[in-house]
Amino acid sequence: MALSEFDIIARYFTRQGAYRDDVVLGVGDDAALLKVPRDRQLVLAVDTLVAGRHFPEDAAAFDIGWKALAVNLSDFAAMGATPAWATLSLTMPAVDKHWLQAFADGFYTLAEQYQVALVGGDTTRGPLSVSVQLQGYIKPGKVLRRDAAKPGQALFVSGTLGDAACALHQLQSGAVDALVFGRLNRPEPRVALGQLLGGVAAAAIDVSDGLLADLGHILEASRCGATLYPERLPASAALQNLPAGEVLEYQCNGGDDYELCFSVAPERRAQLDAMLHEQALSVAEIGVIDAQPGLRCKFADGRIITPAIHGFDHFLSDDDD
Amino acid sequence: MALSEFDIIARYFTRQGAYRDDVVLGVGDDAALLKVPRDRQLVLAVDTLVAGRHFPEDAAAFDIGWKALAVNLSDFAAMGATPAWATLSLTMPAVDKHWLQAFADGFYTLAEQYQVALVGGDTTRGPLSVSVQLQGYIKPGKVLRRDAAKPGQALFVSGTLGDAACALHQLQSGAVDALVFGRLNRPEPRVALGQLLGGVAAAAIDVSDGLLADLGHILEASRCGATLYPERLPASAALQNLPAGEVLEYQCNGGDDYELCFSVAPERRAQLDAMLHEQALSVAEIGVIDAQPGLRCKFADGRIITPAIHGFDHFLSDDDD
Repeated sequence: MALSEFDIIARYFTRQGAYRDDVVLGVGDDAALLKVPRDRQLVLAVDTLVAGRHFPEDAAAFDIGWKALAVNLSDFAAMGATPAWATLSLTMPAVDKHWLQAFADGFYTLAEQYQVALVGGDTTRGPLSVSVQLQGYIKPGKVLRRDAAKPGQALFVSGTLGDAACALHQLQSGAVDALVFGRLNRPEPRVALGQLLGGVAAAAIDVSDGLLADLGHILEASRCGATLYPERLPASAALQNLPAGEVLEYQCNGGDDYELCFSVAPERRAQLDAMLHEQALSVAEIGVIDAQPGLRCKFADGRIITPAIHGFDHFLSDDDD
Repeated sequence: MALSEFDIIARYFTRQGAYRDDVVLGVGDDAALLKVPRDRQLVLAVDTLVAGRHFPEDAAAFDIGWKALAVNLSDFAAMGATPAWATLSLTMPAVDKHWLQAFADGFYTLAEQYQVALVGGDTTRGPLSVSVQLQGYIKPGKVLRRDAAKPGQALFVSGTLGDAACALHQLQSGAVDALVFGRLNRPEPRVALGQLLGGVAAAAIDVSDGLLADLGHILEASRCGATLYPERLPASAALQNLPAGEVLEYQCNGGDDYELCFSVAPERRAQLDAMLHEQALSVAEIGVIDAQPGLRCKFADGRIITPAIHGFDHFLSDDDD
């Protein structure tokens, strides 16, 4: 028997995720009604994942549900914001109950972990595509913006880079490492780190299109340049037996890392170090913001090169471009 | 030359629509930052339009841009809410500059009319699909909800019903009337009426799936029934030469009307009449809410029938269901 749109909503998407008493009206009316805390600004992020472009056509439904929320949580991490309420637009070619159950499980697992309530959305039939919008809030003085980098600030990146790009490469060759595959399919957004960085870091962005491309957005918005120290880019154990050039390519131009890249002014450095130590957070210092425009890579042997930036762009990555 | 995602955003979507000084950060960072007025609740509505399902494959780009925002404004009308900020997720098979320009023109024309600022979104490549989310606010005591209908309340509908369904029918037969076609492609959301009804009407919904289906949502949420007077359903001049049965079918089960259906308690009736008169608004009284569950149509000659409800459902309307 076919499920109507209303049956689908009733069966799979009325679980609220996290319970929140600031939800006045959730799924089921013309619109959702929510209470934003006083003295906070509203934060919105939206990301659409299309089958075959943002995840493999045969990706597990659980992973698609997870990743659709994770990429938005990662945008919140990059702002230092607190996530609260999500909406979901799900377009599917047909109703597959097993697929829907697994998709909802992946979505709600992450939603519960981050105290996010699902408050609305729609389901419609068409080629598989998932659009999630995340709402939340932030204290006005704690916002991490792309345009706040200044010469002399140190550059950092969280966690490790290049695992997801390595996983995509392995998928083509057939030999898949579980660790890097997990980084590709179930990214862990750095929400807690982002919130800790509010008031400490200056500029921040999440690394979704590749380190060089995303750092480039900071430099463009802040009208400055940067020098990177390539040997300092953090790599997971999974990448350590690969040729250095291949690792560097994954780290610089691979997408889907969902780590935070951020700058910190010299006068905030002691505060950052104390915080990282206290929280046992893994963060690497990878470069410095310069007044001179452009991006330079300075190797330990003294070589300086201007790297080619070819991060992932969803309109440029087709064969026909 | 191919346009990247960033070029598309820069070229077509940095026009803000309406200027609003409550937009702290709009398009161009990881997330948007907005100021919600004090003592207001946040309102969210989201709707996805898929080519071939919600608009014809060959629909004009201007009309698609218009309608993608209009359907969300209509949800706001049904809540009595004030629209403020929109996000747009646009999935396109390829970049067509003329199409994008016309789409943006349609979207911004309506955005400017309703003081809506575009504050974020994403563009990606895939089968044509448009998801718009609208944010805004409302005074807590002024909300129109689906679950607020009570026996004895009178039922009303704004404007006229069935034009869009008639247009779809005409499209198949080839002879298209400009008036009904405009109703299908550039619906006018009843935002001002919805705001006026806050504190006057009880329950409300916008008629998007068909009058009977949408009224059914009110009855289900409010746990009551209703009697409709079919001869009182309002029809435009374009429908007046058609057979009565055909007109009634369009009015009852046609989708895409985007009129408001709402109930009003007897003690609010004088207030409603004064308001309608003062504002010269066109609203028809079409029935009454009953304690007895179910929906009955009572004709002028005394016949009472229980109508078949087969409103538009995006999962049930395919041949394979």
